[in-house]
Amino acid sequence: MDVSGVKALTFDVFGTVVDWRGTIMREGEELGRAKDIEVDWPGFADAWRGGYGPSMDRVRHGDLPWTSVDTLHRMILDDLLKEYGILGLSDAEKDHLNRVWHRLTPWPDSVAGVSRLRRKFVVATLSNGNVALLTNMAKNAGLPWDCVLSAELAKHYKPDPEVYQTAADLLGLRPEQVLMVAAHKFDLKGAQAVGMKTVYVPRPLEFGPDVEVEADPDPDFHLFATDFHHLASILSA
Amino acid sequence: MDVSGVKALTFDVFGTVVDWRGTIMREGEELGRAKDIEVDWPGFADAWRGGYGPSMDRVRHGDLPWTSVDTLHRMILDDLLKEYGILGLSDAEKDHLNRVWHRLTPWPDSVAGVSRLRRKFVVATLSNGNVALLTNMAKNAGLPWDCVLSAELAKHYKPDPEVYQTAADLLGLRPEQVLMVAAHKFDLKGAQAVGMKTVYVPRPLEFGPDVEVEADPDPDFHLFATDFHHLASILSA
Repeated sequence: MDVSGVKALTFDVFGTVVDWRGTIMREGEELGRAKDIEVDWPGFADAWRGGYGPSMDRVRHGDLPWTSVDTLHRMILDDLLKEYGILGLSDAEKDHLNRVWHRLTPWPDSVAGVSRLRRKFVVATLSNGNVALLTNMAKNAGLPWDCVLSAELAKHYKPDPEVYQTAADLLGLRPEQVLMVAAHKFDLKGAQAVGMKTVYVPRPLEFGPDVEVEADPDPDFHLFATDFHHLASILSA
Repeated sequence: MDVSGVKALTFDVFGTVVDWRGTIMREGEELGRAKDIEVDWPGFADAWRGGYGPSMDRVRHGDLPWTSVDTLHRMILDDLLKEYGILGLSDAEKDHLNRVWHRLTPWPDSVAGVSRLRRKFVVATLSNGNVALLTNMAKNAGLPWDCVLSAELAKHYKPDPEVYQTAADLLGLRPEQVLMVAAHKFDLKGAQAVGMKTVYVPRPLEFGPDVEVEADPDPDFHLFATDFHHLASILSA
C-alpha cells in the first residue's frame, strides 16, 4: 500500500520496542537473590502487565482522574507485592522496582533499526508510558528518538483517537503523513481511525515462549515487517 | 549557589542555543540573490523577531486562541513581505521561508556543550517554539536532546508559570531539580517563580554586533556561564 507521503514514524514502545517481560524477570531474579526470596517472576511480570489495561480503563471511564503510567504501575505493584509475599521492601526499593519500566531493554534490532529509520524519517515514541518514563528509557537504552510523544500529552490513553491526533498535530503533520509502528493490532486500529498509516511488527516473544502471537501479515494494515531492520529495508531507509 | 540536586537541564532555544539573526540574514541573502532583490536582511530579521513577543501577548491576553509559533511567525512574515517589498513568492516559497526557524544554526559551542551536559543530566528544550519546529531543528542541527519540551505542551507562552511547571511535571521532577538555561533574564525569572534553578548564559551576538547585551554575572540567578562548555565544566559534566 502507498506510504510514499509518510514523513514521521511513531512507535508503540512496551512490547514493540522493548522487552518488558524479559527485563522484569531479570531484575526480579536479581532482587530475589539479594533478598533471598523465591518468586514466580514470569508470573509476576505477566500480572503486572495484566493490571495495566484495566487500570487505564479506570482513567478512561472516569473512575480515576488523569493518572500517569508511573503511578498506575505503582498502584498495581503495591498489590502484587502483597499477593506474591514480597515483604519488607523500603519505599526507596519499591520506587526503584517500579522504575524498572524506565530501564526496559530493547529487542535486539530496536536501536539499530530506529537509527536507520531516523536517517530518513522523524522517529518518535507514541506510548501510553509517561514522558519521564520514555525519556529515561531512551537515555538508558540508547534509543535515538527525535522526540518523545506520549498519551500523557493528550491526557487520553491509546487507543483513544485523541492520542494519535495529538501526536500528528504536535509533529505538524496530517495523520496520513505518520506511520504508526506497533506489535498490537488494537493500537494500529486506533491509529487508522484518525487516518494514520500502519505497520504491524509482531514480537513473537513479547508474552514469553508459551504464548503464541499472530505473526502473519494482516491485510488490515498498510505494511508488515518482521523487525525494524526489515521495516527500514521496506522503507528504503 | 547549590545546584547539587539538579537532574535535568531545560534550555531556552531561540538566541540561547541557536543564532536566529545570523541564520535569517544568511538565508535571506540567498533568497535575495535568487530573486534578484535588495533587502535590508538584518532589519528584516530584527523585525521578524520583534513581532514575536507582541504576537504571543495576543495569545496571552486572549485576542487569539492558542496559536503555534509557526503560525505566529507566518502572520508576521506575511506583513513583513509587504513592508519590505518582497513580492511574487509562491505559497510554497513563503512556507519554506517561514520554516527558516526550523533550520536555525546553533552557536559554535551548542552541539558539543549539550552533548557533554547530556552525559550527566537529562537535557531538554523548553522553548516557546512548537514541538514540530524544535524537533525539525534538532534533527537538522544535530542537537542531541533527550526530549523536546515546549510551551505548546502547556498551551501557555513563557514566562507564564504554567510552562515551567508543566516541564518539571513531564520530566517527573520537582522544579528545584531542574536547571533553566537561558540568555534572557525574563525567562530565568519565570523559571525561578516556580522554583527552578537558573543559569544565565549571555549570548553577546544575539541581536547583532551593535546591540549590547548584559554579559556580566547576575547575582539574581544561581549560576553564570559564558557558554555551554563553561556550563559543562561548572557542573562537572
